[in-house]
Amino acid sequence: MSNALAIHAKAAMLSEDWADDVRITVADGRIASVTVGTAAQPDDQRVGLLIPGLPNLHSHAFQRAMAGLGEVRGAGDDSFWSWREAMYRVAGQVDPDAMQAIAALAYVEMLEGGFTRVGEFHYLHHDPAGTPYADPAAMASALVAAAQDSGIALTLLPVFYAHAGFGGQEPQAGQRRFVTSLDGYARLHAASAAALRDLPDAVLGLAPHSLRAVTPDQLAALTALAGGAPIHIHIAEQRREVEDCLAWSGQRPVEWLLDNAPVGPNWCLVHATHMTGAEPSTLARSGAVAGLCPVTEANLGDGLFPASDFINADGCWGIGSDSNVLIDAFEELRWLEYGQRLSMQRRNVFAARPGDSTGAVLFDAAGRGGAQALGAAFGIAAGHSADLVSLDPDHPALAACPSGSRLDALIFAAGRAAIDCVWRHGAKVVSGGRHVARAAIAARYASAIERLRA
Amino acid sequence: MSNALAIHAKAAMLSEDWADDVRITVADGRIASVTVGTAAQPDDQRVGLLIPGLPNLHSHAFQRAMAGLGEVRGAGDDSFWSWREAMYRVAGQVDPDAMQAIAALAYVEMLEGGFTRVGEFHYLHHDPAGTPYADPAAMASALVAAAQDSGIALTLLPVFYAHAGFGGQEPQAGQRRFVTSLDGYARLHAASAAALRDLPDAVLGLAPHSLRAVTPDQLAALTALAGGAPIHIHIAEQRREVEDCLAWSGQRPVEWLLDNAPVGPNWCLVHATHMTGAEPSTLARSGAVAGLCPVTEANLGDGLFPASDFINADGCWGIGSDSNVLIDAFEELRWLEYGQRLSMQRRNVFAARPGDSTGAVLFDAAGRGGAQALGAAFGIAAGHSADLVSLDPDHPALAACPSGSRLDALIFAAGRAAIDCVWRHGAKVVSGGRHVARAAIAARYASAIERLRA
Repeated sequence: MSNALAIHAKAAMLSEDWADDVRITVADGRIASVTVGTAAQPDDQRVGLLIPGLPNLHSHAFQRAMAGLGEVRGAGDDSFWSWREAMYRVAGQVDPDAMQAIAALAYVEMLEGGFTRVGEFHYLHHDPAGTPYADPAAMASALVAAAQDSGIALTLLPVFYAHAGFGGQEPQAGQRRFVTSLDGYARLHAASAAALRDLPDAVLGLAPHSLRAVTPDQLAALTALAGGAPIHIHIAEQRREVEDCLAWSGQRPVEWLLDNAPVGPNWCLVHATHMTGAEPSTLARSGAVAGLCPVTEANLGDGLFPASDFINADGCWGIGSDSNVLIDAFEELRWLEYGQRLSMQRRNVFAARPGDSTGAVLFDAAGRGGAQALGAAFGIAAGHSADLVSLDPDHPALAACPSGSRLDALIFAAGRAAIDCVWRHGAKVVSGGRHVARAAIAARYASAIERLRA
Repeated sequence: MSNALAIHAKAAMLSEDWADDVRITVADGRIASVTVGTAAQPDDQRVGLLIPGLPNLHSHAFQRAMAGLGEVRGAGDDSFWSWREAMYRVAGQVDPDAMQAIAALAYVEMLEGGFTRVGEFHYLHHDPAGTPYADPAAMASALVAAAQDSGIALTLLPVFYAHAGFGGQEPQAGQRRFVTSLDGYARLHAASAAALRDLPDAVLGLAPHSLRAVTPDQLAALTALAGGAPIHIHIAEQRREVEDCLAWSGQRPVEWLLDNAPVGPNWCLVHATHMTGAEPSTLARSGAVAGLCPVTEANLGDGLFPASDFINADGCWGIGSDSNVLIDAFEELRWLEYGQRLSMQRRNVFAARPGDSTGAVLFDAAGRGGAQALGAAFGIAAGHSADLVSLDPDHPALAACPSGSRLDALIFAAGRAAIDCVWRHGAKVVSGGRHVARAAIAARYASAIERLRA
């Protein structure tokens, strides 16, 4: 049992509630047993507080390379669309080596920031001229290598992208690295499956980019290809997209998708920001996951998700770091709640019932919804991969904190500074808040960035 | 020159712009010289990037003791007012020893989080029965001791509090520790001045709590007492307060104050959230500082400050950590901008002119406005106190970042994790991101909290 490990926690969060004196054994990366109310054994790794790692359901890893560079005012009013031009310039420059270096750093930061699985919404397929690489999954393989370098669990979502706008508009020059035919996409998808073969806990899904970028026929073909695998799509992020969809179809994007595609629990609708009327409750009833990215949606000026209507209909949601401008699971959750407080001018919005801890509700919902969207499991339970985060019990916000408020204290008062160690698939990848390979991965990132900006 | 020190920075932010190879000499806590484009000398402390510390213009230090404990849903809709009841329960328990222990930890976290001066809006004057302590400034002295323990610069703002609501309503039981007569306040103010005598860079201002808590006559008396010292007042934080003010006076709070008090550059209007019509531009023209507390205003569900109208009128503002639920200068700035982006659905709102870096505009405005509100100086310049923050130049978000985007990268992409060292009045108080006295101060905090919650 060279791969065996046991962790003893003074308290651990097990399916929605805290238990004391919890001993967890791990074999071959998976949790073999969870025992509550037991003493530590001599060789156990002892921790204070233990929580499961969170899934990050939406990432474009390469965009970490432009973090902080899109905040200088342009000539007119800046918007998502002017930001997208800058993003396309970065996208035009990244080769497979740079992709691996940038993604590895982003994934290190995710592991340090509370995430143990990433859903990589991957559209940067071809070389800068738009020609497929000799291996059509060369860029996907760079993401797989970055997942290996960092240890994070990967749900790869290769993106199908064909058009610049509703009604099958010709793609723009800045989109040429993304565009495939359906046949080309099938080759890419098969090559991606091969690239994932040796990565522990890997999942392969697929992603029609948006209703702007795929026609109804293409969407139907992709849906058929998916089987039960995760299907992710960007939707209703921007008002202009809603207006264009109305002009094209007479319906709003979420409305159109729910009427015209077999949306169900294996679907993730990323953003779904601009919904009105019955859209939030219809989406909730479909069983699909709303993929919310509060930090990026704020950075891009997208708008606020209509959470109240969606929660009231028991909607399922998770969080994503999207543009990776800042990577922090707890800041995503904190500002998801805070955005609602600011717009509704009341407190504890996500906590629907008296006595509910807002932090516990947010954490549990994001964990379950994120895992559902990524085709994975969530939580500290036998059979699950050992994806665990220990917290410093002496952090001032957590010391002497009643157990019922611990996740509030973590999310609203302490933040990621309270993270001590992270185990992924049973391997300790973060210690003292720092990824064990951070120095080497950061050095490789820095030289990749210097090359890009030269 | 036992108190002498020299720091050499590869780059330092000097009055709105970066300069390379900057050597700063310090004597007796103050910057003696700033030389640009010069080599380091053998005994210099060498740093990568150097920025000035920011002022935190609004803090209730004792509220750090309830951080994370106000996020459990109550019986009805939670609001600022239900949170205030919980806050009053904590306020009822804190004695001078606990005040010192809690404030010292909060101040340590401020220094680790980018702040080098705090404006302490201090109303917890008397013992739990409402009787003045033998030394009327016993609680103020505890705050002074906490500033000494941590090294932070203090602007003390003793609060005058007399009434529970507009029109001179009798104070409630939960407010008895706050209430004084005007004579009692004058004694408290004089004793506070004495308590501050030996604290480097200390400033004494005064603070009518709010238009709810003081009558027009009391406000006039306090204004006369101030001379040119800082005057801070809570205003227009909550819609109910606006409605009550309208019912009482026929005017909105900001409107009433600007019409009935000599509001000028030594005033700080804290929150000023709910303004309409001409209020933002009239406030801007008064020269007073708007005291914005984005994290707390989000936590309490206050609402969003009308920044666009205020910026267009060249309004002066700064930031405060207020309830101290989370202490982080860069998160305050990030979400001040993000709140505006979400409500206006555009980007780079605070950057008014093409080519402006949003981060640089935010940092400079918060530095100058905060310093103005606290009666202090801001920036790296000869004669100023040596209040300096060094950043890790190898942080991935800062490495290879063009200088014009460095403050964007710091505020939006790196956050406080990039802070390396902090000097306050020439003494190094933070090293490697950690306050040099953190362990002892955190232990004292933990035992104070255990006592409070027992």
